[in-house]
Amino acid sequence: MTMPFLDLRLATRRNGSRDGELMLVSPSGQRWLSAGPTVKTMQALLDNWALQAPELESRRRSLDASGWNEGETFDPDECMAPLPRAYQWADASVYRNHARLIYQWRNEPIPPRYEDEPLVYQGGSDGMIGPREPIVAIDEAHLVDLEAEIAVITTDVPMGVTIEQAADRIALVVLLNDVSLRGLIPGELAKGFGFYQSKPATSFAPVAVTPGALGPAWKDCMLDLPVRIELNGERFGEPHANSDVVFNFAQIIAHLARTRCLVAGSIVGAGTISNADPESGSACITEARVREQLSGVPLDRLRPYLRHGDRVRICAMGPHGEHVFGAIDQQVVIHSPG
Amino acid sequence: MTMPFLDLRLATRRNGSRDGELMLVSPSGQRWLSAGPTVKTMQALLDNWALQAPELESRRRSLDASGWNEGETFDPDECMAPLPRAYQWADASVYRNHARLIYQWRNEPIPPRYEDEPLVYQGGSDGMIGPREPIVAIDEAHLVDLEAEIAVITTDVPMGVTIEQAADRIALVVLLNDVSLRGLIPGELAKGFGFYQSKPATSFAPVAVTPGALGPAWKDCMLDLPVRIELNGERFGEPHANSDVVFNFAQIIAHLARTRCLVAGSIVGAGTISNADPESGSACITEARVREQLSGVPLDRLRPYLRHGDRVRICAMGPHGEHVFGAIDQQVVIHSPG
Repeated sequence: MTMPFLDLRLATRRNGSRDGELMLVSPSGQRWLSAGPTVKTMQALLDNWALQAPELESRRRSLDASGWNEGETFDPDECMAPLPRAYQWADASVYRNHARLIYQWRNEPIPPRYEDEPLVYQGGSDGMIGPREPIVAIDEAHLVDLEAEIAVITTDVPMGVTIEQAADRIALVVLLNDVSLRGLIPGELAKGFGFYQSKPATSFAPVAVTPGALGPAWKDCMLDLPVRIELNGERFGEPHANSDVVFNFAQIIAHLARTRCLVAGSIVGAGTISNADPESGSACITEARVREQLSGVPLDRLRPYLRHGDRVRICAMGPHGEHVFGAIDQQVVIHSPG
Repeated sequence: MTMPFLDLRLATRRNGSRDGELMLVSPSGQRWLSAGPTVKTMQALLDNWALQAPELESRRRSLDASGWNEGETFDPDECMAPLPRAYQWADASVYRNHARLIYQWRNEPIPPRYEDEPLVYQGGSDGMIGPREPIVAIDEAHLVDLEAEIAVITTDVPMGVTIEQAADRIALVVLLNDVSLRGLIPGELAKGFGFYQSKPATSFAPVAVTPGALGPAWKDCMLDLPVRIELNGERFGEPHANSDVVFNFAQIIAHLARTRCLVAGSIVGAGTISNADPESGSACITEARVREQLSGVPLDRLRPYLRHGDRVRICAMGPHGEHVFGAIDQQVVIHSPG
């Protein structure tokens, strides 16, 4: 069971190993210290969360008292994804407005039972991208899209948990870019087996935060903040992550665990953030294009998908303008193999 | 790069930890020794395959010379899945006859481009079941089915590998039971996002074997042996794993790696084994039921799906009757939570 009062900010530092080094980050996000020899990696912490997270928190409190003087300056360039490789990445689609616009794009009805149970897919979790690493794709014709999303990382979740129990299994909250190759999606989904090639590696903001550290910004098992997306330095969207959602994270986890356990370190997403208000912009290019189409822009004048050299920036801003998870800041690199 | 000449049999022993202890298994499958302090787990070996697998092999050779006297008796009851938790489990469907019969059952056409590129889905990899652990389901009404399959475990696979390069990334071959909840499949696939609840945890035979250890039983990047399935002690099927396949493992891996890297320890399956010859029986109950239907058995007289207490046994027999991967031998337990 997780402790909802835990107040921790964690990240993973590139150190040449596959899993990196677990970093304890200061509440200001400006300083960091190694989590120490007893818990070397994020996965190791999640494996033993009930014992080690409270220990880390008491260490964090001492550091707060001493002003983090022994710490070093936090630099997101040094960060890997909080979990550089994970045993599970399961993503849902709980934003009604996103479903509405995306299925308009696909020219298909919204999937059956969309309002009755979370619509989920099993994503690839073997390699996650750090906040400043490039989005590498092999062909612009694959229509490279960003998708700004919130996810949680769980402790162990037994099969058949209730929604209430599922809420207690949420260890950390993260911000991510679920890069999608829109050009490959229709062909893959037509086969009926879900996404594979169309969902390349996912990118993560550097800092994973406990629900307790979010304070009032964690509400009804959702992040209660807007998420800001910038494309090449310009505002692209700023939808609120807790607006018009069909299901919250506890409900998604309970759905996932109906016939299976989830092991500690499972990453569970809520899908592309989307608000009905067009003023909020979009958290993916496809949705922005559908909105343009609906407002009469001709097909050949719609905004383009991501191109070589484009820069994507995603962050969630707290009430005092602070970057809660740090920022994703990535450049697109089109790189044909061979 | 893997070394095709490597001759290793490996397993994972339950020791109270999440990843177990890596076991070096004798060529006879009768004896084992700990792989030693430098490579404690299967994942650690795969992470550093090029360096550590040859070291393990030279140790295996010394043990062969001394008759494995220092070893202990190999007991599959002590085994976890070879990789108890994995960063990826991607499964294909390459047996033409299985596709033909299954889509007959679904009353749908075989997916588009089935012969042009491997049909694959992203499976859940966070928790794998050992060879003698029960198949736990919450409801017989979910229609619990077995699926006997061969898979490979890869080393690191870069994005965009050729088929030839992909073949060199195959570290190990494994035998598994891809348990499926047939009753949940139509509802999930109708949503278009693939399997989730309908594919609970997968079970594995205890011994993972290098292609080099398979000798002539590894042919054209496929296992060239029949796989025997028994249900409650009776022969259920014995289809050959290298008969009438659309794609081999190198082709599947190259397809998976088109837009993504695969990290070391990715498990890549070929789908439910199936032969056109009805005498070979079936590797899943659904297929056997479709065959019964086609031969005129009325719906209410078809053989049932798995029930509480049923026993499933799966093994692959070498030319001298030896169990190449050891046997999966599981009992079904229906266990409603709460």
